[in-house]
Amino acid sequence: MYTYEYPRPALTVDCVIFGLDENVLKVLLIQRLKAPFEGSWALPGGFVDMRETIDHAAQRELQEETGLENIYMEQLYTFGDVDRDPRGRVVSVAYYALVKFEDYKKVRGATDAMDAAWFAVSELPPLAFDHDKILALAHQRLKNKLRYQPIGFELLPEKFTFSQLQTMYETIWQKELDKRNFRKKILQLGFVMELEEYQTGHQHRAPRLYKFDKEGYLSREAKGADFEG
Amino acid sequence: MYTYEYPRPALTVDCVIFGLDENVLKVLLIQRLKAPFEGSWALPGGFVDMRETIDHAAQRELQEETGLENIYMEQLYTFGDVDRDPRGRVVSVAYYALVKFEDYKKVRGATDAMDAAWFAVSELPPLAFDHDKILALAHQRLKNKLRYQPIGFELLPEKFTFSQLQTMYETIWQKELDKRNFRKKILQLGFVMELEEYQTGHQHRAPRLYKFDKEGYLSREAKGADFEG
Repeated sequence: MYTYEYPRPALTVDCVIFGLDENVLKVLLIQRLKAPFEGSWALPGGFVDMRETIDHAAQRELQEETGLENIYMEQLYTFGDVDRDPRGRVVSVAYYALVKFEDYKKVRGATDAMDAAWFAVSELPPLAFDHDKILALAHQRLKNKLRYQPIGFELLPEKFTFSQLQTMYETIWQKELDKRNFRKKILQLGFVMELEEYQTGHQHRAPRLYKFDKEGYLSREAKGADFEG
Repeated sequence: MYTYEYPRPALTVDCVIFGLDENVLKVLLIQRLKAPFEGSWALPGGFVDMRETIDHAAQRELQEETGLENIYMEQLYTFGDVDRDPRGRVVSVAYYALVKFEDYKKVRGATDAMDAAWFAVSELPPLAFDHDKILALAHQRLKNKLRYQPIGFELLPEKFTFSQLQTMYETIWQKELDKRNFRKKILQLGFVMELEEYQTGHQHRAPRLYKFDKEGYLSREAKGADFEG
């Protein structure tokens, strides 16, 4: 037993792992083994140990509950509503990441989770706690990032068609985009480099290939940071 | 005394309040009354009560320690390094805001603070805990926001000159900007609207006035969110 002069909230982490599966945006959930919300689906997560950082807690809980390892997660937000957990005051630091579904489709439930599975974001089961709110904020953050930052290029082949790129944006934004506007905006952002290569396997009009212009992006980024570019 | 089956970190909030004072960026600090770091300067903040949200804790601690009320603060990041506090494991949720120094220059130390005062960000005293790290991240976040979002227009007069706007950016970024590049970039962002009015009190070449184009910004923002604009 541990005794303190003042009461303390419990501290947890929750992980929102988005997986891009062709043109479906998925999220990794676990099925809870214990009360509260026994049998319900929830985000992977759990209590922070005293001797680990919160970043480490997120990595450890994700690994323990789903088998996923070494996922680069970013901190999203800390959720501290007073009644968000029926067990009492629990504050949760949420993390999120976007991965290629193909590389992580085999997941397994373990420790506190009786099962782990990917669900399409558009067809979610009811979630435990305030996890629908956490997931919604993570999705919104991901959508916003995509407007300015070169997110998700590591999920595409090294050389890709504009159509593949557009599909990725449409899948994350969950809406169809106008082809011409999309092309114009992406070229303005300056993330992609046109190649003198075309996709093979087409009878007519083989589509041109592009790649992520990382150096160009980084140098513009360094300059643009203070409007010098 | 409060007893738990597992150990729990203590949970605090810290507030980074930036104040724009003409061409000086300031931050609001308090002088600690108690150990650890007794007598040191620190960010306003303190322990989260069990019956309040973390947002509320930030508002309350800021008010109690400095007298500032009803400041809209955004959550910045949660700091959870294991050894960040000599008292033991303390996790802190940091918040930040940018205010007009003029409106809040009278501050007072109270409760846990023996003094409260504004310091230029470029001339800070040594700070308690990891507060230099928290402050650095808050400043970085503010700088980044300025690149894309119309931050700080409520700190300027309703009608302002380009030079006033540039000074604000230079003050937050803490560097001089090229006038022509600045003008080009701001106009590209589409935040400001040119007026057919000129600043009075000039003998020659009275500078033109501008205002924040809020509706234009919001409608572009709504469209731009999915590259339709």
